[in-house]
Amino acid sequence: MQTYIIDQEINPHVDQWEAEGKFPAHKIFKILGSAGFLGVSKPVEYGGLGLDFSYSVAVAEELGNIRCGGIPMAIGVQSDMATPALARFGSAELKREFLLPSIMGDKVACLGVSEVGAGSDVSSIKTKAVREGDEYVINGGKMWTTNGTQADWICLLANTNDGPPHRNKSLFCLPMNLPGVHIARKIDKLGMWSSDTAELFFDDVRVPCKNIIGQEGMGFTYQMLQFQEERLWAVANILTMMDNIIQETIQYTRQRRIFKQPVLYHQSVHFRLAELQTEVELLRSLLHRATALYIKGNDVTRLASMGKLKGGRLARELGDSCLQFWGGMGFTSDVLVSRFYRDSRLMSIGAGADEVMLGIICKYMDTLPKN
Amino acid sequence: MQTYIIDQEINPHVDQWEAEGKFPAHKIFKILGSAGFLGVSKPVEYGGLGLDFSYSVAVAEELGNIRCGGIPMAIGVQSDMATPALARFGSAELKREFLLPSIMGDKVACLGVSEVGAGSDVSSIKTKAVREGDEYVINGGKMWTTNGTQADWICLLANTNDGPPHRNKSLFCLPMNLPGVHIARKIDKLGMWSSDTAELFFDDVRVPCKNIIGQEGMGFTYQMLQFQEERLWAVANILTMMDNIIQETIQYTRQRRIFKQPVLYHQSVHFRLAELQTEVELLRSLLHRATALYIKGNDVTRLASMGKLKGGRLARELGDSCLQFWGGMGFTSDVLVSRFYRDSRLMSIGAGADEVMLGIICKYMDTLPKN
Amino acid sequence: MQTYIIDQEINPHVDQWEAEGKFPAHKIFKILGSAGFLGVSKPVEYGGLGLDFSYSVAVAEELGNIRCGGIPMAIGVQSDMATPALARFGSAELKREFLLPSIMGDKVACLGVSEVGAGSDVSSIKTKAVREGDEYVINGGKMWTTNGTQADWICLLANTNDGPPHRNKSLFCLPMNLPGVHIARKIDKLGMWSSDTAELFFDDVRVPCKNIIGQEGMGFTYQMLQFQEERLWAVANILTMMDNIIQETIQYTRQRRIFKQPVLYHQSVHFRLAELQTEVELLRSLLHRATALYIKGNDVTRLASMGKLKGGRLARELGDSCLQFWGGMGFTSDVLVSRFYRDSRLMSIGAGADEVMLGIICKYMDTLPKN
Amino acid sequence: MQTYIIDQEINPHVDQWEAEGKFPAHKIFKILGSAGFLGVSKPVEYGGLGLDFSYSVAVAEELGNIRCGGIPMAIGVQSDMATPALARFGSAELKREFLLPSIMGDKVACLGVSEVGAGSDVSSIKTKAVREGDEYVINGGKMWTTNGTQADWICLLANTNDGPPHRNKSLFCLPMNLPGVHIARKIDKLGMWSSDTAELFFDDVRVPCKNIIGQEGMGFTYQMLQFQEERLWAVANILTMMDNIIQETIQYTRQRRIFKQPVLYHQSVHFRLAELQTEVELLRSLLHRATALYIKGNDVTRLASMGKLKGGRLARELGDSCLQFWGGMGFTSDVLVSRFYRDSRLMSIGAGADEVMLGIICKYMDTLPKN
Repeated sequence: MQTYIIDQEINPHVDQWEAEGKFPAHKIFKILGSAGFLGVSKPVEYGGLGLDFSYSVAVAEELGNIRCGGIPMAIGVQSDMATPALARFGSAELKREFLLPSIMGDKVACLGVSEVGAGSDVSSIKTKAVREGDEYVINGGKMWTTNGTQADWICLLANTNDGPPHRNKSLFCLPMNLPGVHIARKIDKLGMWSSDTAELFFDDVRVPCKNIIGQEGMGFTYQMLQFQEERLWAVANILTMMDNIIQETIQYTRQRRIFKQPVLYHQSVHFRLAELQTEVELLRSLLHRATALYIKGNDVTRLASMGKLKGGRLARELGDSCLQFWGGMGFTSDVLVSRFYRDSRLMSIGAGADEVMLGIICKYMDTLPKN
Repeated sequence: MQTYIIDQEINPHVDQWEAEGKFPAHKIFKILGSAGFLGVSKPVEYGGLGLDFSYSVAVAEELGNIRCGGIPMAIGVQSDMATPALARFGSAELKREFLLPSIMGDKVACLGVSEVGAGSDVSSIKTKAVREGDEYVINGGKMWTTNGTQADWICLLANTNDGPPHRNKSLFCLPMNLPGVHIARKIDKLGMWSSDTAELFFDDVRVPCKNIIGQEGMGFTYQMLQFQEERLWAVANILTMMDNIIQETIQYTRQRRIFKQPVLYHQSVHFRLAELQTEVELLRSLLHRATALYIKGNDVTRLASMGKLKGGRLARELGDSCLQFWGGMGFTSDVLVSRFYRDSRLMSIGAGADEVMLGIICKYMDTLPKN
Repeated sequence: MQTYIIDQEINPHVDQWEAEGKFPAHKIFKILGSAGFLGVSKPVEYGGLGLDFSYSVAVAEELGNIRCGGIPMAIGVQSDMATPALARFGSAELKREFLLPSIMGDKVACLGVSEVGAGSDVSSIKTKAVREGDEYVINGGKMWTTNGTQADWICLLANTNDGPPHRNKSLFCLPMNLPGVHIARKIDKLGMWSSDTAELFFDDVRVPCKNIIGQEGMGFTYQMLQFQEERLWAVANILTMMDNIIQETIQYTRQRRIFKQPVLYHQSVHFRLAELQTEVELLRSLLHRATALYIKGNDVTRLASMGKLKGGRLARELGDSCLQFWGGMGFTSDVLVSRFYRDSRLMSIGAGADEVMLGIICKYMDTLPKN
Repeated sequence: MQTYIIDQEINPHVDQWEAEGKFPAHKIFKILGSAGFLGVSKPVEYGGLGLDFSYSVAVAEELGNIRCGGIPMAIGVQSDMATPALARFGSAELKREFLLPSIMGDKVACLGVSEVGAGSDVSSIKTKAVREGDEYVINGGKMWTTNGTQADWICLLANTNDGPPHRNKSLFCLPMNLPGVHIARKIDKLGMWSSDTAELFFDDVRVPCKNIIGQEGMGFTYQMLQFQEERLWAVANILTMMDNIIQETIQYTRQRRIFKQPVLYHQSVHFRLAELQTEVELLRSLLHRATALYIKGNDVTRLASMGKLKGGRLARELGDSCLQFWGGMGFTSDVLVSRFYRDSRLMSIGAGADEVMLGIICKYMDTLPKN
C-alpha cells in the first residue's frame, strides 16, 4: 500500500514540487496519516500503531523510494523527529492536542532546535522562554526549520532558566499561528528543493505553561534522546536511496556503450560499484544491529552516531562516484543521481554535523581532552 | 583592467544570470574582446595579442575570479577551445570570417564535438558531412554544446569519409544561422547555470567546402591538439577558484564560532585546509611545468591529461570538504562554495572524462591491453 | 581459560617465535586441542564440541588477542580452513585418521590450494592427481602453504580429470611424510614471521583413492564452501586485533605529550581514531549478520566476501593511521602496531585477494561482462 | 659514473647489509666522496663541487636507484642533513676539521636533533650544554640517530641558555670518540634495516667552545634552515624510488597472468598505476618549482613542507597499492616493493612528521589558533 502511495501520490509530482521549492505537506501527510504511516511506533491511544521502532525503520527504508530527499525528510520530521519527545514525555492533554493530529496527518509539525549562531552546537542556543504567571514569553529565532513555512506547530527548544547549558532548556509545543511567530524567509538551498526550510523569529510569543513537554529544564536531554531516533531514521532512509542509485546506475551503464562495450563492463566501473555496495551493506548491518539493541531498551547513541557519520560520508562518496558513470547525463537535472548528489549532501550537516558525531563517538571512547 | 571588467561588468550580475540560466554572451564578449582578452595567444593579424600560451593561462587564472563556473567556461570556449585549430590550420579567408570577429568579441563561437552517443569517446561520433560539388551536406546532432543557444558559429567535427575513425573526420566553421541548424533544447544542468548548453540538430545543412579547417580527414588530430589547450586552460581556471574557495572558507570559519572557538581553530579544520592547499600547490606546479614545456613546442598531452584528471578530482574533494566547514550555510545557495560544489563537478566529466584521461596516461605509460 | 592459554602459553613467547620465523605448532596445538579450541564447531564424534559456527567466530575473535598475526592464522588453518570440507564431506575413516587428531591437536594440518602460477585464481591450478588402480599419483607444487614445514598432513586440491576447471578438481588428505613430498623452502615474508610458509613439491606421490574427500570432481566446489568459513574466521580474528591496536594507541597517545599536550588530545588524532572505530563497528556488525545467516543455513558468500574485502582494506588503513600516532616508536620493532602493520598486509592478499572478492561481489550483483 | 657506483659497489650488497642491519658507511662514503658526490653543493675550498642545490637534488634523485631506503638516507644525512649549517655558518677551522673530511668521505657524520621526549617537537629538547670556561659540558641523550653507531662526529643540537625555546639552542660539532659519549643501543626498526639507528647518551661530555657552529643561541634557527634542504633532498630521493616501483610493477604484472590475461591488463591495475604516476608527476613538479625558487634565494619552507607531506603520504599509498598487484610475491622479502613498503613508512615520521608539516603549512596560511 505504501508503495502505492509513493508511486501514485508522490513520485509523479516530485519534479514539479522540486521546481516549486515546496510540496503540499497537508495533503500528503493526510494520505500517509490515514494509511497509518505517520505513527507506526507511536501509542495506539493517539492514533499510532503501537509497534516498536524497527517498524519506523522499515517505513523510513520504504520512503527512500521517493525520488527526492526532501519529501522523505519532511515526513521523517513529522513522524520521528519532532514527535518522539512529545510521545514519550508529554502530558495526555498535549498529546491529544498535538500528537494525535500529527499522527492522523491533520497537523504539520516542525522542529525548532538549530539557530543562526548554534547549528550543531545545540547547547549554545539563545532563544529564551521567560515565565510570566502561567505563560512563557518566548523571544529569539530558529534556523533551518524543515516544514517551517507550512507547519501548524513547532516542537521548540528554548532556554527556560539560567543554569548550566545542559540543564536550562525545555521543549514546547508551540502553535505556529500565535501572535509574534514570524516566518522570516524560505531558505534557498543546494538541494532538498521540494522541502521548505524556514528561518523563524519569535517576538514576545506567549504560550501557556502546560505546553511544556515533560519537565522544565529537561529539554536538552529530551532532544538528545529524540536525536537517536532521528539519526537511525535518516540512516534507514538514505540506505534505500543508495541501493536505488546503485541499481539505476547499473541499469544505465549496462545499456550505455563507450569504447565498444557497455560502460558497466569496464572493470573500474563494476569494481567501484561493488565497493560501494559493500559499504552500503556494512552500514545496513550496523543499522539493524543498532535498531535491535534500541528496541530492547539500550542506549545506542554511540552506534547511532556512527551510523549517521557513515551514512553522510558514504552518501557523498556514492553520489559522486555514481554520477561520474553517467557521464554528461549525470550533470543534467533529468536524472535521479544528480538530485541525490545535491540532496544527500545535507546528511553530513543536518541533525548534527559529522564533526558532532565524531565528538560524540570520542566521548564514548573517552578520548576527548580533559581540562 | 581585467579585474575591473570582472568586478564591474560581470560579478555584480552573476546571481541574476545564474537564476536566468544564461548570460549575455555578445555583450560580455564584446567588452572582453575590446580589452584584448579573447585572443591573447592568437595572431596579431586577426586581432590577437600574439603572445605565447602562458598568457592564455594567466588570463584563465584571472577569470577564475568570476563568481561562478559557467561564465569563465563560456569565455574559455570562445578564446581557447573552439578557436585554436582555426588559428593554427585555418585558411586566411576563414580566419578573417570567423577568427577575427571572435577575437574582437563580435561573434560568439561554440564547439561541436560531443554527441548523444559519443561523449568522451570522440572517435565514434556519427554526424556526417557528405561532399556534393563544392559544398558539404551535414546531417546529425551535437550534445552538451556550451554557448550553443546564442552562438553565431560552431567549430564542428563531422565524419567526411569512411576511413578509420582517426582519419575520417574534419573540422568546419559553420554559421549557426544556416538553414537546417536546429537548437533542439537548452539542457537543464546540475551546475554551470549561467552558461547555456544546447542540444543541436543538423538537417541537410549546406556549407561551402572552403569552410573546412585545414585538411580534410585531419579533424580528429586537430581536435586532439585543441584539447591540449582546453585542458590546460581548464586547470588554470579552476586553480584560482580553488584558491578563492579556500580563502573564503578561512575567512568564514575564522569569524564563525562553534563550541566556544572559531571553527577554523579546530585542528580538523585547519589541518584539512592545509592538506587541500598542498594539493592545490602540487597542481599549480604541474600546470606551470606543462605550460613551460608547451610553449617550447613539446607535446604535453601526458601532463595536460594528468592536470585535467587531478583538477577534476581535487575540485570535487575541495568543494566537498570546504562546504562541510560552512555548516548549514554551505547548504544554502547564498554562498560561493555551494555553487562551486555544483559547478566544478563538471570538471571530471567535460573535455574528456577522468576515465579518458586515465586512458591517455596509460597509453603514454604503455600499459594498455594489446590484442 | 582460553585467555589463560594466550596469556601464559603463547604471548610470552611470541617475540622469540617471531624472531625465529616459526612457532612450535605441535606443542601449541596440543594445548589448544586439549582445551577443545580446535574443533568447537566440529562433530562431537571426532572430538569437536558440536557447536554452531558462531562459536568458531567467537574463538577467532578471542585469538585476536595473540600479539602477532602469524599464530592465530596458523591455528585458524588447523581449525577452520583445512578441515571444514573434511568434516562435512569426508568419509568416517578419513575423519578418524585426519580430522580427529587435528581437533585433538595431535596432528598439524595445512591447506594446499595456491600455486606459483595460480594464487587467487584457484581454477587454474596445475597440480595433477592421476588415477592408477586404487591410488592417485600426484605431481605438481603448492605455494604459500601456512604450517607447511611442520604439517603432518595437507588438505590438497588437485586436478583429477580433464573436464572444465570448476568440475575437474578434488580434495585429498595427504600425509606429508609420503615419499615424493618435498618442502622446497620456507618463504621469507614481510610479516607473519612466526608462521612458517612453505613452497612444496609433489613428485610421483602415491596416495590411496580412499584419501579423496567426498566426491571426485567436487574439489573446487568444496574449496569454495571452505573459503566461506575461512573468510568469516579471518574477519573475526582481525576485528579483535584492530580493537586492540586502537586501544593501545589511545593508551600510548594519552601519556605521550607533544606540543604541550597529550598526543591524543590533538583533534586530528582522536577524530581519526573515532573514524577508525566506526569502521570497525561497521565491519563487526556485518560479521555478526553474516554469521547469523550462515548458521541458519544461508549462502553468505556475498557477505563473507564483502567482509573479507573490508577487513583487508580497513586493516591496512587502521595499521597505517595508528602507526603514525606512535611517531618514531611506531617505526620500531618494539611495538605491536608495527608488527600489525606488517602482518595485516596479508589480509588483502591471502584467502582470495581483494580483487577476487570484488569479482565475487560483482558476480552476485550480475555486473560482470558477458561474452 | 654514479650509476656505476650504485650498480657495482652498492646494489650487489644491499640484501646482505639489510640482513646485517648495517652497511659499511666508511667504505661506501669514501667511494662516494672520492667521486665528488658528498659535497656537490658545498664550497670548493672544503672539497665540494661548488654547484647550486639543484645538483644536490639531482644526486638525491640518482641515489633513489639504490635498492633500499636505508643507504640513500645515510648518504643524505652525510651530504645534506648534518652538514648544511656547518657549511653555511661554521668557522673555517671547524669546516676544515669536520666538513672537509665528511665531503671527502673520510669521516662519517650524524645529526643529533630528536630526543626520546621530543621527536618532531624540536623546540622541547632537553639535552644541555653548559659553559664552563672555554668548554661546554654536555649532558642528555639523542634518539633515532641515523649513522649513530658508526659516526665519527655528530652535529648536535643542545640547549645553551635558559631563554625562550627558539633562542636557547646551539649546534655543535662533537667528535663521537669523546669521553662520555655512549651508544646506548642500535634500534630495531620496521624498515631501513641497512641503516643503523642509535640511541645516544652524553654524560659530562666536554667540548671546546670553538666547536659551536655559528652563533650561540642560533641553533634552532640553523636547524630549521637545515631542515629545508633535508626535506627537499628526501622528496627528490623518494621520487626516483616511486618511479622505480611503478616501473617494476608494470614489468611484473605484464608477464604475470591471472584469469587468462596479464595482471596489468586488468583495468583496475593500469588505471591505478596511472593515478599513482599522476601523483608522482605532481610531486616532481612541485619539487622542481621549490628547488628553482630555493637556489634563487627564496624561503621555500612552505613548499618544502608541502613536498615532504605529500612525499610521505604518496609513498605510503603507492607502496601499498603496488604491493597489492604483486599478489603473494608482494608479501615476500624477495621483492623491492615489500622493502619499499617497510622503508618508506618512515618518510611520514622522520625529519618532521606529517603533523608537523601540516602545522608549518598552517602557520604560513595564518590559520593556527591564536591565544
